[in-house]
Amino acid sequence: MNKIEHIGIAVKDLNSSIDIYQKLLNTDCYKTEQVASEFVNTAFFKTGENKVELLQATAPDSAIAKFIEKKGEGIHHIAFLVDDILAEMERLHKEGFVLLSDSPKKGADNKMVCFVHPKDTNGVLIEICQEIKWI
Amino acid sequence: MNKIEHIGIAVKDLNSSIDIYQKLLNTDCYKTEQVASEFVNTAFFKTGENKVELLQATAPDSAIAKFIEKKGEGIHHIAFLVDDILAEMERLHKEGFVLLSDSPKKGADNKMVCFVHPKDTNGVLIEICQEIKWI
Repeated sequence: MNKIEHIGIAVKDLNSSIDIYQKLLNTDCYKTEQVASEFVNTAFFKTGENKVELLQATAPDSAIAKFIEKKGEGIHHIAFLVDDILAEMERLHKEGFVLLSDSPKKGADNKMVCFVHPKDTNGVLIEICQEIKWI
Repeated sequence: MNKIEHIGIAVKDLNSSIDIYQKLLNTDCYKTEQVASEFVNTAFFKTGENKVELLQATAPDSAIAKFIEKKGEGIHHIAFLVDDILAEMERLHKEGFVLLSDSPKKGADNKMVCFVHPKDTNGVLIEICQEIKWI
């Protein structure tokens, strides 16, 4: 895995959280994006080569809404950038990790993504992601 | 803040978790270190320019033991690298964030560190850290 691409943070209110993270990270939010398939609104910040992603649920039965209901606001996932998501999914599967989808899904920020089940990783939800290249 | 220096993950058993993260991240643990003042044993992995730190409590009333008791294993904190920790502490204080210590403390991995209270940051425990330079 090449680097931490981003940290995903589940928040109740995106606008007020954008204000907080602009002050905290001392940088402006550079992008907001709705990911309709995941029922989230997102906001991105750059911190050097890494990013912080805030996620607000747009539906009460979405993954983010359920996460907040169960655990409260906080860090939801870590995303690692990979060169070849299919090869990495195969490697992780062979190592015994359970993947949450059989094939990569379209995520935010022009990425194909796949999640690893947190039961195998000390409760940490891991995302692997690869930039989509349009050729 | 320059980059995500590391993600700290609270685990119950360091040795078995090292095995898991070696497989997950496809890289060997490059260092283990006891931080007696924080009552933790730590293990570090490199993922590009970022690190993953596993933390196991060495005392039942330590911060990591209490975290696991309350929330279970999982992501404990995000650490951002800064150039000047004193200046950054002053900036955060002026922005209204509550710092968990008045001055930087000696952390793991040759760093001076300071934490920001998670009540101001959507439940996320933020660490800022600066490499110690011995001159």
